[in-house]
Amino acid sequence: MSGSEIILDIDVGSPYTYLALELSPRRAQGVPVRLRPVLIGGIFKASGNHAPATNPTKGRYMLRELQELATQYGIPFRFPSRFPINTLLPQRVLAAADLAGRVDPVAHAVFRAYWVEDVDVSTPQGLAPVLDALGDGELLARASDQDVKDRLRESTDAAVAAGVFGLPAFHVGDRFWWGHDRIDLALRAAISAG
Amino acid sequence: MSGSEIILDIDVGSPYTYLALELSPRRAQGVPVRLRPVLIGGIFKASGNHAPATNPTKGRYMLRELQELATQYGIPFRFPSRFPINTLLPQRVLAAADLAGRVDPVAHAVFRAYWVEDVDVSTPQGLAPVLDALGDGELLARASDQDVKDRLRESTDAAVAAGVFGLPAFHVGDRFWWGHDRIDLALRAAISAG
Repeated sequence: MSGSEIILDIDVGSPYTYLALELSPRRAQGVPVRLRPVLIGGIFKASGNHAPATNPTKGRYMLRELQELATQYGIPFRFPSRFPINTLLPQRVLAAADLAGRVDPVAHAVFRAYWVEDVDVSTPQGLAPVLDALGDGELLARASDQDVKDRLRESTDAAVAAGVFGLPAFHVGDRFWWGHDRIDLALRAAISAG
Repeated sequence: MSGSEIILDIDVGSPYTYLALELSPRRAQGVPVRLRPVLIGGIFKASGNHAPATNPTKGRYMLRELQELATQYGIPFRFPSRFPINTLLPQRVLAAADLAGRVDPVAHAVFRAYWVEDVDVSTPQGLAPVLDALGDGELLARASDQDVKDRLRESTDAAVAAGVFGLPAFHVGDRFWWGHDRIDLALRAAISAG
């Protein structure tokens, strides 16, 4: 009765994806949410889209809105001192975690490190203690393995092929919805498809 | 106890503004929502932002999402055959309606004509029957009056000065929120300020 699964595309560089990641366990009503690490830079490049904060007026607004949404949802949030960051390394680590069946705890920890604790997760030095605390320290070395690189590329390509132009994206079957507040539309589709 | 008012910036060329306009009476919980006609082209120009559908991948997504949101909300919606349109004339008509204390019924009728009935509201021929049906036919001639032009320019300038980069925008005091689904944040602010 729980419907089909939702795939949630994630990149740690996206603040609204952090909100989606924190909200989805509360909102999912028992529908499985499968996290899929993708590379947001690849999605922007393929779709011709740009990060919203590229426009300074929009960026100023979003900084205020993010804080307000986090407060409303009761989600800890502190905008990091380094933004944007290059997310290739952390996304490869998340892809490695995905292959190891560890993406849920690792993603939550890496996102929290960046979006709450101001850890520079773009570097091995920033990531190592976060992974070590979970007992997943070996994922850092896995980041340079070919199967991990391939996994991240394939997941990104799959998102692009589905029409994704920004994150977060929630997929149900061959449809997707964009934006952290669209989880309810994805959920409705998942339940009616289940 | 109804809190301070919400100002809702509107331009008939914006599909998400149509959703906001239709939803706001249902959601406002007694808080007054004052409609302020602005020129979205002026907002994009001043903020350096672009219409979301400028990106074709995003545009395809939005077409699907709009239909789905309208269905979910129970709002009639049919994407018009002419899009985008030049909204200078209809926005001047709405500014004239604003000055005449008639913006609520005129805005709802003009938005419905475009977003449901596929009327080309960019032209006098399209607008005339819509206005005549309301007994507001004289607003069309008013569109070229200097005080009406000034009103539209001043309202657009006020939105830009507040930091608006896209529509719909809900203002409460000196803060605003962007997007039809942010009415709840504006409402919360209006009620706590009231």
